[in-house]
Amino acid sequence: MKIIQENNLVLIVYKDKRYLKRMGRDKSFHGRGGALNFSDLIGSRYGVRHGQYEIFEPTIEDIIMYGIRRETQIVFPKDGAFICFKLNLRNGSRIIEVGAGSGALTVMFSRVIGPQGIVISFEKEERHYKNSKKNIEHFVEWGNVELHHGDVMDYANNGFDAAFIDVREPWIYFDKVRDLIRGSAPVGMIVPTANQLTDILRVLGSGFGDIEVIEIMLRRYKTIAERVRPEDRMIGHTGYLVFARKLESIQLVQ
Amino acid sequence: MKIIQENNLVLIVYKDKRYLKRMGRDKSFHGRGGALNFSDLIGSRYGVRHGQYEIFEPTIEDIIMYGIRRETQIVFPKDGAFICFKLNLRNGSRIIEVGAGSGALTVMFSRVIGPQGIVISFEKEERHYKNSKKNIEHFVEWGNVELHHGDVMDYANNGFDAAFIDVREPWIYFDKVRDLIRGSAPVGMIVPTANQLTDILRVLGSGFGDIEVIEIMLRRYKTIAERVRPEDRMIGHTGYLVFARKLESIQLVQ
Amino acid sequence: MKIIQENNLVLIVYKDKRYLKRMGRDKSFHGRGGALNFSDLIGSRYGVRHGQYEIFEPTIEDIIMYGIRRETQIVFPKDGAFICFKLNLRNGSRIIEVGAGSGALTVMFSRVIGPQGIVISFEKEERHYKNSKKNIEHFVEWGNVELHHGDVMDYANNGFDAAFIDVREPWIYFDKVRDLIRGSAPVGMIVPTANQLTDILRVLGSGFGDIEVIEIMLRRYKTIAERVRPEDRMIGHTGYLVFARKLESIQLVQ
Amino acid sequence: MKIIQENNLVLIVYKDKRYLKRMGRDKSFHGRGGALNFSDLIGSRYGVRHGQYEIFEPTIEDIIMYGIRRETQIVFPKDGAFICFKLNLRNGSRIIEVGAGSGALTVMFSRVIGPQGIVISFEKEERHYKNSKKNIEHFVEWGNVELHHGDVMDYANNGFDAAFIDVREPWIYFDKVRDLIRGSAPVGMIVPTANQLTDILRVLGSGFGDIEVIEIMLRRYKTIAERVRPEDRMIGHTGYLVFARKLESIQLVQ
Repeated sequence: MKIIQENNLVLIVYKDKRYLKRMGRDKSFHGRGGALNFSDLIGSRYGVRHGQYEIFEPTIEDIIMYGIRRETQIVFPKDGAFICFKLNLRNGSRIIEVGAGSGALTVMFSRVIGPQGIVISFEKEERHYKNSKKNIEHFVEWGNVELHHGDVMDYANNGFDAAFIDVREPWIYFDKVRDLIRGSAPVGMIVPTANQLTDILRVLGSGFGDIEVIEIMLRRYKTIAERVRPEDRMIGHTGYLVFARKLESIQLVQ
Repeated sequence: MKIIQENNLVLIVYKDKRYLKRMGRDKSFHGRGGALNFSDLIGSRYGVRHGQYEIFEPTIEDIIMYGIRRETQIVFPKDGAFICFKLNLRNGSRIIEVGAGSGALTVMFSRVIGPQGIVISFEKEERHYKNSKKNIEHFVEWGNVELHHGDVMDYANNGFDAAFIDVREPWIYFDKVRDLIRGSAPVGMIVPTANQLTDILRVLGSGFGDIEVIEIMLRRYKTIAERVRPEDRMIGHTGYLVFARKLESIQLVQ
Repeated sequence: MKIIQENNLVLIVYKDKRYLKRMGRDKSFHGRGGALNFSDLIGSRYGVRHGQYEIFEPTIEDIIMYGIRRETQIVFPKDGAFICFKLNLRNGSRIIEVGAGSGALTVMFSRVIGPQGIVISFEKEERHYKNSKKNIEHFVEWGNVELHHGDVMDYANNGFDAAFIDVREPWIYFDKVRDLIRGSAPVGMIVPTANQLTDILRVLGSGFGDIEVIEIMLRRYKTIAERVRPEDRMIGHTGYLVFARKLESIQLVQ
Repeated sequence: MKIIQENNLVLIVYKDKRYLKRMGRDKSFHGRGGALNFSDLIGSRYGVRHGQYEIFEPTIEDIIMYGIRRETQIVFPKDGAFICFKLNLRNGSRIIEVGAGSGALTVMFSRVIGPQGIVISFEKEERHYKNSKKNIEHFVEWGNVELHHGDVMDYANNGFDAAFIDVREPWIYFDKVRDLIRGSAPVGMIVPTANQLTDILRVLGSGFGDIEVIEIMLRRYKTIAERVRPEDRMIGHTGYLVFARKLESIQLVQ
């Protein structure tokens, strides 16, 4: 049984609206379901109704969707969850991220690799670096993220288990990323346009094998038993995902 | 640098075909790219080309797709990765699974929760129990799965962090599962038909809040730079995903 | 060369906004591209730029999307075009429509069957009858629509080439519609929910064969050469389409 | 009541299989539902069960899908129906088709424009010309198609109501097609790859306005009332559709 404590994050649900709030004795929330004094929540359990609101312990999805402050287009959960899976991330993985953006995916990586893993993330743009730094400070629970303000090109370690590239011109980093990860390790990237796909596919094959391009569409349904049907509107596009695995330059003699 | 050793699993890629094989000195593979003696692979690195084949260290996806022996419709990676995410699984999570099926999702759960976590999984059908037991023995690397041949109804522990139900009539288990998980904990399920959605939505709201119904479509693209386009054929349907979170029966006085 | 005349309909395009307007010497349009006096358009050609606006002769799609006054959810062009096709409509077809709604599909039917065809349409609700009547008067160019305020149950003719049912409980009309159309003739319907699909499929098979259930998704792309990608948002659902063909009750002796 | 006659086309349906056959007294069909002598069908009605078979009068869709002999990738009905609609085709329309391919879309155009309309179609490749010529002879019911073995570049008429381009490099024909159609007239094209989209969008804007890029996905559902769900597999891609409207080069003075 978990008790809501001061400074805890709480998810407040009202119908299909969700709000992520940090608890404070003198703070409150004013929504369509009326006022909610956080001092009334502190000390009570997660998973209760409070007037017209439902009060939950936030999941990683709630944090990504309602916690992360966005200064860039973030990688959405439908893509992020699949990326973690395709990159084979797990307890203890060591991953390189090129382009932290707002840090949403960084936070997901951190979660998936656990306290024994490490995310080394690079962000060149100062404004995004500062924002992602704050997001990481607020939402990473294990100290397993190392955020660099700079260019991965200047980074020298290697032997990483996986890499993800989320920048406008990912191909610039293919050789470098290949140096950083170990043989057979997966690399992923996300790009919004088909033009970028073309540019990626032109060069990715030299140094990487088993190339895949994937698009994930998520469709929500209404939740009324008597009227089962998709929502009227859906997200039409977030990005194209590309995955590959590092091939060593040596070739086995046959 | 990882070296392929006897008994290791290896992914062999030939064009868009993938094969998962366990290494043995006297074993070999005969595919369209010719014969491949495993004695030639043992001792060499992952991530190399060997004739027309590419040799990789398998990811969790390779294991699910090419390793798991299927006696039931498995939960596919596109759904499985999203399920793990929605259930908020991470290092140390404790999860209940109702209906192990062929064990594909069990293996994914095991991977995501790491060595400190635990999956308690139930399978009533003896044939499926035996098959999933073997799959779990072969493909789970941490001893964090407890597979029961029997009915979750007879199970008494509680305080679980999440639950997943993959049976024909998930609603039968709603009350039981609610008892097993802690307040606010997420529950998920997958069903192939809209009729089942109706039946689920009729009763899920008593005891659970923040209900969502989601469908994930995955579309693959060809990987030729000059001809960027989706594949001609795609999977049209795997299942509808339903998620909710446990509401405590008590209601806070407002 | 077509000249814009008083009372003509004109499509005004400004970036991705479209407006359908009827010309009048003393009328004008005020949009983001500035003011447009219709007296300046009258007498000029279709297919010209006028300041920041593009001026086109409206197509049937423009009429459906921007002309039809909607008091109900209309059948959208992506579905309507496919319906006309599946119902095998063509020059001279005679079709029964049960539920005119706002008349959007009625107008499409009228267009497809040409001056030799006939649409017999029924609308029970007075408000919708009046609205669809106006829409039909404004937008049907051939006098080939007969709109009835009443119930198709009271209608006695038969031998129709096709039928379409767009009401909440289409199954009520299956027997009647079957009487009205000739053997082998196609019938179609559209319903928003999967629950209705279930109810339809329970009974449609008695009297109709070759049943199909189809969903059409339309995805728009941005039109910038350097950034080819789908639009961020799309319509997630309009309706499920059901098609079948009338089977005569007699069975040939084999 | 229509009677099946010698030489008529008949659609034979067995479960979810469909066969289009031309009737002949001494011909027969042998399928999974057993043998079917056409002499038994001739003289009987359309829309009857005959043993395990259902016998229907073919629709335009049946002709396109099961009648047209394919030597090229055909334009599928889901796209073809929408194309006819977007091109504003109707009784009496005059349309130019660049690239007849196998003639499937030509046959659809012919059907939609009725006996008063005309399709002028060009096919350069001799093999495709011959095949489409046969398909048009077999399946066009009104003499409203003029198929040319040659290049539309050599064609001189103009004032057409619409144009469709289905060739590998549609941009080659933009200027010519623009000359052939009247101001404001719609032009459409279909291309399989995003690379072609880029090339199209680079030049289409000079001479055409109101550009749209659209993709249509069709998803089929099983037809069992108790198990409403999409089919396991679907077509993942046919082509990207592009539409625009001719802009006159003159610009109205503002």
